[in-house]
Formats: sequence, structure tokens, C-alpha cells
Amino acid sequence: MSMLSELMEQPDAVRRCLDANQAQATEFAELVAAADHVVIAARGTSDNAARYAQYVWGSKLGLSVGLTAPSLFGQRNRAPSLAGAVVVGISQSGESPDLVAVLESARHQGCPSVVITNHPDSPLGRFGDPVMALCAGEERSVAATKTYTAQLAAVALCAVGSTAAHDMAAAEEMAVAHESAAAELYGMPEVLEDVLKTAHTIEAAAGGLIDADRCVVIGRGFHQATIYEWALKLQELTYVLAQAYSAADFLHGPVAVVEPGFCVLMVATSGTHLESLTELSEQLLQRGAHVVAISDEESFPCSQRVLIPKVAEWLAPIAVAPAMQLFAHSLAVARGLDPETPRGLSKVTRTK
Amino acid sequence: MSMLSELMEQPDAVRRCLDANQAQATEFAELVAAADHVVIAARGTSDNAARYAQYVWGSKLGLSVGLTAPSLFGQRNRAPSLAGAVVVGISQSGESPDLVAVLESARHQGCPSVVITNHPDSPLGRFGDPVMALCAGEERSVAATKTYTAQLAAVALCAVGSTAAHDMAAAEEMAVAHESAAAELYGMPEVLEDVLKTAHTIEAAAGGLIDADRCVVIGRGFHQATIYEWALKLQELTYVLAQAYSAADFLHGPVAVVEPGFCVLMVATSGTHLESLTELSEQLLQRGAHVVAISDEESFPCSQRVLIPKVAEWLAPIAVAPAMQLFAHSLAVARGLDPETPRGLSKVTRTK
Repeated sequence: MSMLSELMEQPDAVRRCLDANQAQATEFAELVAAADHVVIAARGTSDNAARYAQYVWGSKLGLSVGLTAPSLFGQRNRAPSLAGAVVVGISQSGESPDLVAVLESARHQGCPSVVITNHPDSPLGRFGDPVMALCAGEERSVAATKTYTAQLAAVALCAVGSTAAHDMAAAEEMAVAHESAAAELYGMPEVLEDVLKTAHTIEAAAGGLIDADRCVVIGRGFHQATIYEWALKLQELTYVLAQAYSAADFLHGPVAVVEPGFCVLMVATSGTHLESLTELSEQLLQRGAHVVAISDEESFPCSQRVLIPKVAEWLAPIAVAPAMQLFAHSLAVARGLDPETPRGLSKVTRTK
Repeated sequence: MSMLSELMEQPDAVRRCLDANQAQATEFAELVAAADHVVIAARGTSDNAARYAQYVWGSKLGLSVGLTAPSLFGQRNRAPSLAGAVVVGISQSGESPDLVAVLESARHQGCPSVVITNHPDSPLGRFGDPVMALCAGEERSVAATKTYTAQLAAVALCAVGSTAAHDMAAAEEMAVAHESAAAELYGMPEVLEDVLKTAHTIEAAAGGLIDADRCVVIGRGFHQATIYEWALKLQELTYVLAQAYSAADFLHGPVAVVEPGFCVLMVATSGTHLESLTELSEQLLQRGAHVVAISDEESFPCSQRVLIPKVAEWLAPIAVAPAMQLFAHSLAVARGLDPETPRGLSKVTRTK
């Protein structure tokens, strides 16, 4: 039962992560204040935390954040230039050799490096200065849950911590924004507790996909992270071929796959994109799609809804995380599969 | 029949694109020589050309290339900093307002901008200096074919043109490498002609998916572009839910979806990753998967093979492009669908 128990540990994991990384977030702030842009190296679930960083650091800190292709760093003397960048490695285990190669190249090129990992003593951890330890506790489950949510919390903390290092002219306004954003972030462990209490609604919604062998997962903005991670969890645990799409990209082509009965999962929380997602969902329902939505809006049009508490737009991916993880877990159980032993998976993949 | 005829025009489209953009490639070279990194804005098929740019400019020019999230640029005064970047917009039509917003922000921030488009007089085109016109001729088909391949050619040309602007210390060695890379690139139109002659093999291979409603598409390195574009073409034309995976990411989790009879499409051409792809394909075949491979290697293990000519590793995505497009077209026809009128699609999507 390690996946379910780890899933339930998330409020505490996030609390510990926020408590333990105050100084590191300030160091991060100082590093990015002196840099042009940020390059992130990550894979799998951590790649989804990187997508969150792209949006959060982009919108809150005005930073251009790129996700690098680790395979470009295989031969040190031909690695891309990291000039002007702060390099961030994100990995639960800190073991992946291809991520270590990116951080090695950053050191070789004289770039500052930050590592976000649950294992600060790992090969990757050795390259971080600072290292943000997730403090999520040992993760035994093959499917990452609490470490993903703690990674999001660490990323969010960097956005809050960083205001301290900015332009002093705007200091007062920023201090207020900082305080309010920080308060929102520190409230997340309680929100996670509330979300975990909705397990029965989530189970019922997951039941709607019991016979599906494919679906798409749609969201926008900050939820780029959510949709890719939700799709990954479904594939790891339920063998449903789930594909994530930004609502914007979905209309550029893949909408063609939708036919009556086709399952669409949506993440639609309050903010910039809620209106366009509402329109999209109405269109999909008209085409006969079965739409399951995780939303903080009782009136969001869909076939089945998982209602979660309203939080600040930028923090919604943290609130949604346990809901989509529980959804994947419930669907696996409903389909008679064992979420603890997904076929063909091992905890650490050593990419060559 | 516009899709099929446009698909067949590719050798000429690529030839025209290479001929028309010599000066622009040199200008690109000068811009990136003075910059720290490259930020690309693109969506849909053009996003896949951007993935190719990430690998080609990363490996051939040592540039760090990030794909930005256009939605971060919706409000100009809160857009991410593009300091130190050359900003590149890629779009067939040049009409997408969200891409225009990124280029507007680049101009506002004083960053050099390059636009790659089939419509140099479009709203996006106005922001490019230089503008690389694809010269692919009008594209009437909803599913992009020749403009994708021409975009790849433009990206490749930038990598060849750019060597001129580099460090003079290595000038002689680079001149030789430059000449050889340029010769390889200018040979591509003929290679495309050869690939288009293998239509019958491709049709036969596509037939193997006639009853599939899902599949995964796997490759690595330069072929990141290929696998995402192949998956997109399948979704646009055949309504098969096709999901692209880097072979490395696939082993991190999604390999769990593979069961007997599951369809896996692979792109496996000569070079760095051929050995690991061979191992992966053997594993998948052992699990009972139906593996269709586009490969330049007669001995690549798979259930069905589309054999294409051997070209330089970095140019293989151009060679493979018409093969995977023909594959998607053939599968649509085999399934009784009309590739000219995919349901729910329009040529230009105006993302809000």
C-alpha cells in the first residue's frame, strides 16, 4: 500500500519541504537576479515539475525558462553553451546519469547550478549549490506522488523567496505581493488535506473510464504540468493511453480524434483560461465526448466533476496533484490492476 | 487531392527553400554569434520544427535553445525577460496572434528576431529581421506536409550558414565541416525523391494498423521532431490516438501500456541512438508488441519495416518526413477516411 500511503502523506511532505528550503530559495533568488535565463534538466515526472517552473518563474519572476534536451550533453566538448543561464536539475532520485552530465557541463562552463531532489547526497545532488532537499521521506512506490507535489512546492517557494532579491524601487509593492503570495503558498498543506478528503468523488469519476483504453487530458497555462503528469500517472498505473494537450494545441489538430463516447479529462480551475476551457468543454460535449473535469467551479460544464477548493491560480497545480493521482490510483483498482506493481517499470531509469 | 500532391512536391519545396535563404542563414549566423541563447515560439506542426531546431542548433552550433510558452506573453508588461536571446518565430501561416505577441515582446525588449514562415507578408512575418520565406508554394491541405519539411530545411540551413560567423581560430577545420554539412544538406531534395518512391512499402506497413485505435511513436535525439509530427499526422488524419515518446522517457513509465498486439511505431536511423533503439525494439517484440519501424538499417528488428536511404544523422528527420506523412495518409485511406477533410480541423487556429 505504499502508493496510497505516500499519496496521503502529501500535506506533511509539502509542509516539510517549505520549512526546510527558506535559505535555499533566497540563494536561488540571488542567482537568477544575476542571470539572463534558466535552463532545466529533468526527465519523467520531474520534467512535469519543470513545466510548472517554466510557467511560475516565467509569470512571477519574468524569467525565460527552457527545458533542455539532456542527450545533447552526452559529449562534454560538444555541449550547448549555457552562457547567462542558471542551470536547475530536478530529479527524485538524483541518479540519472544524463542529468548529471548536464550539471557537470554547467560546472565546467562556470554556470551556477541548483538541484531539487529527494536525495541530496545523490550524484546529482553533489552538483547543486544550493541543493533543495524535498524532505518528502523515502518514496517506495514506483509511481511518484509526494515527491512530485513537493517538487512543485519547492518551485513555488523559489518564486516567493525570489522577490527579496529584486529591484528595490518596487520594493514596497513587491513586499506586499510577496507576503500575499507567501501566505497563499504556506496555506497549501491544509488545502491538500481538504483535497484528500474528496477521495469518494474522485473514485466515482474514475469509474467512468473503466472500459476506456485511451483518453486525452486537457488544460492550459500553469496546468501544463498537471496534464502531463496526470497522463503519465494513467499510463503508469492503468495502461490507458492518455495524451496530454494544451487546449490551444488541441484545437490545432488533435481535436479530430474526438468522437461520441471519447473520454476527455480536463483541469479547469479559476483564472485566465477558465472561459476558453468552458467553451472547449461545451464543444466537446456537443461532439458526444465524455468529459471528466477537476475544477474549482461548480458550474463547469462536464459529464463528471471532481470539485476542489479554490486557490490562487498559480498554486492550483499543487492543489490538483493529489486529486489526479487518486484518480489514476482509483481507476487502476477499478480495472483490477495493482497500482503497487505496474508492469515493466523500475524506480530509477538509467538513461544511456 | 491536395495533401498527396503537396506531399509529392517536397523535393522541389526543399530545393526552393534552400536556394532562397542563403543570405538569411548568414544573417541568422551573425545574430546568434552575438547572443547567449535562442528562444523559439511556435505551435502545432511548427512546434515540431522547433524541436528539430533545439537539437540541430544545440549540437551543430552549441546553442542553448528553449521553446517558450506563448501564453506567458499575453500581457506585455508581465512578459518574461528575453535578455541575451535571439527570438525565433516559426509558423506556416504567420497568423497566430499568440506567436505575434511573443515577437512583439521581443521587439519591445530590443531582442533580434527571426521569422520562418510560408507567408512573409503575414502579421508574424512583419516582425522578422530576417524573415526566412519557406517558398513551399500555397499549402491548401489542412494537414501540413511540405511546409513542415521546408521548415526543417530552413532550420538545417541556419546550422550550415552559421559556421561562417564563428571563432576564427577553428576556421579551417570548421570550413571543412561546413562544406561537408552543406553538401549533405543540398543533397536532400534527391533523397526525398527516393523516399517518395517507396510509397508501396509504406502502404503495406500502414495496413498493419488498420484496426488500431491507439499506438505510441518512439525515437530519440534529432527525431524528437519526427515522432511528435508523426503522432500529430496520425491524429489529424486517422483518429488513432498516437503518442510520441523519447525512447528515454518511455522507459521511465509509459512502457507499462505495452501488451501483446499493442502497436509501436519507431524511427530508428543510423547514429548515436541506433543501438539503444535496437535493444528497446527487441524488448517490445518480446512483450508481443507489433513494431513498425522507419529505418535505414535492413537488420533493424521489427514486425514491419519501411527502408529509407542512409543520410547524415542530423538530416535524417528531413528524409523521414515524407515517409511518416505518407504512412498517415495511407492509413487514413485504408480506414476509409478522407485525408483532405479531417473532422474538426481548420487551417489556421487563432489561439486566444
